[in-house]
Amino acid sequence: MVETYGHHHAAGYHHEDDKKTGWWDACIGPGKAIDTSKFFVVALNNIGGCSGSTGPTSPNPENENRPYGPDFPLVTVRDWVKTQALLSDRLGIDVWYSIIGGSLGGMQALQWSVDYPDRLQKCVIIASAPKLSAQNIAFNEVARQSILSDPDFHNGRYLELDSYPKRGLILARMVGHITYLSEEAMKQKFGRDLKSGKFMYGFDVEFQVESYLRYQGEQFSRNFDANTYLIMTKALDYFDPSREYEQSLTKALSNTKCRFLVVSFTTDWRFSPERSQEIVNALITNQKPVSYLDIDAEQGHDSFLFPIPLYVKSLRAFLGGIEHLHSTPKEAL
Amino acid sequence: MVETYGHHHAAGYHHEDDKKTGWWDACIGPGKAIDTSKFFVVALNNIGGCSGSTGPTSPNPENENRPYGPDFPLVTVRDWVKTQALLSDRLGIDVWYSIIGGSLGGMQALQWSVDYPDRLQKCVIIASAPKLSAQNIAFNEVARQSILSDPDFHNGRYLELDSYPKRGLILARMVGHITYLSEEAMKQKFGRDLKSGKFMYGFDVEFQVESYLRYQGEQFSRNFDANTYLIMTKALDYFDPSREYEQSLTKALSNTKCRFLVVSFTTDWRFSPERSQEIVNALITNQKPVSYLDIDAEQGHDSFLFPIPLYVKSLRAFLGGIEHLHSTPKEAL
Repeated sequence: MVETYGHHHAAGYHHEDDKKTGWWDACIGPGKAIDTSKFFVVALNNIGGCSGSTGPTSPNPENENRPYGPDFPLVTVRDWVKTQALLSDRLGIDVWYSIIGGSLGGMQALQWSVDYPDRLQKCVIIASAPKLSAQNIAFNEVARQSILSDPDFHNGRYLELDSYPKRGLILARMVGHITYLSEEAMKQKFGRDLKSGKFMYGFDVEFQVESYLRYQGEQFSRNFDANTYLIMTKALDYFDPSREYEQSLTKALSNTKCRFLVVSFTTDWRFSPERSQEIVNALITNQKPVSYLDIDAEQGHDSFLFPIPLYVKSLRAFLGGIEHLHSTPKEAL
Repeated sequence: MVETYGHHHAAGYHHEDDKKTGWWDACIGPGKAIDTSKFFVVALNNIGGCSGSTGPTSPNPENENRPYGPDFPLVTVRDWVKTQALLSDRLGIDVWYSIIGGSLGGMQALQWSVDYPDRLQKCVIIASAPKLSAQNIAFNEVARQSILSDPDFHNGRYLELDSYPKRGLILARMVGHITYLSEEAMKQKFGRDLKSGKFMYGFDVEFQVESYLRYQGEQFSRNFDANTYLIMTKALDYFDPSREYEQSLTKALSNTKCRFLVVSFTTDWRFSPERSQEIVNALITNQKPVSYLDIDAEQGHDSFLFPIPLYVKSLRAFLGGIEHLHSTPKEAL
């Protein structure tokens, strides 16, 4: 199972309206790192989202079918993993061959290994962290405040009022976007290039990087629900599998039974390699089987979305075990 | 001369209404790094600011004395340095003993060495950079968009309309503030501590770091003019002393005549040590006299405001030369 990141459309084209492939198409497909010619891959849409599952834009039967909006309850990574276990029951899958996720998806994979130790054989945690740092929370708070302070947010009831906090969402996404990219990637992509080739000395877009961020922010604001954005950032902030284990990650991971692959990227400053290493150290302290790779990559946090050769190879090698699968036919990826 | 950073009140108390000492009081005063028992220190307020010199809040005689607002012209670091040279003429100072600045102030000190090579003996450039990176510009752009997209901004004419883009300024400051602090400083200062001691699961302030950022943002929004904030960030973005020298910093620095001290701080990720080293390398290529220190400090970019022992010592040693001063009585610090 591939843990998601906003949308269940993780790879390929599935509908004639699909304008692009899924968000992780670089790594999922026939012959790719997560090889669909070997494995059956399940990618889902989490509750609270805005692209399929019930979320703040869904009708609330307890309020005359108006959109839930701000009445939609907050959800945690633990809640998501619980709903995913219920989905597994429904699909008749007792044990997953592997649970795989990057970033917030990696947190879900980690939580699976803690909450359902008997229900997965392999756990892949990519570009993730055992909990957010104060700096991570601070950036999320700026994004939330951008939305909450937009007059068009109307305390979250914008849909009922035919309004939309577009400016807040654009700002939130701009802040987020900067943290996804490495300083080096930004330098290579934009440098200090000017959009028009010369200085305008004004507040219109001048540098290429400004133009890019505004464009990305506007695109995002058209397709994402503001209440969902708030819920997602809070799920990130609250995530801490050690909370029920006296704040000890080592204790939290002591009952895990799967094999782990942990991957970080050298230029990822949102969830730096040190954060992945906290997970690895806690596993080693518990004498759990873990492989760890810090991949040399220039794309910052976004690196996990790219088919970087060593990363692809390690993922493929770790998943390998097709023979093993044949011997336990009840299991599926 | 100490190059500023928003306000000329750099040290001590000067008025009975002063509630706190100046912003660089840790380093300026009798017996401190910049020792006022040895030197006469001039700190000024730059044009375009909102704390004394003419700026966007000043009356525009060409528009019935209404505030300039968005009609105030953009100013560059070069413009500021030119006005400072005019001030020097007015004060009767031909040659400054030293021009000292941190961050944007360091850029002004660097520009002095290029534009007026005969008018300073020593140049101190602290926690600065030879020009902004794409990431720096991106963060400034988010801050600007926060202000520009605030409905209370009214295209910059908020004062005339008795309005104020408070929300925009708060967001801008929150973004800026995160970049001033190191990840380590935030961790030590706040960690993941909860304001009330327990999770609320809502969008009120929960983590200490959120509370701190919102408070700092609100304080700032009361005392700073939004148009000035826009002007200051653009001055930062445009700064590039190599622009008139075929984009070569080495060429730009080839005619400098002063001695240089360049200081960076290990955890400063806004203007990282590598950026200071670009200046040092260009000076060394020109065989110019330069001392460089990368100070081990935990406070990120803000480190330059703290009296860190090695930093204070190096600054004091570099300025030293009181005897030298006596031999050239026309010069002043």
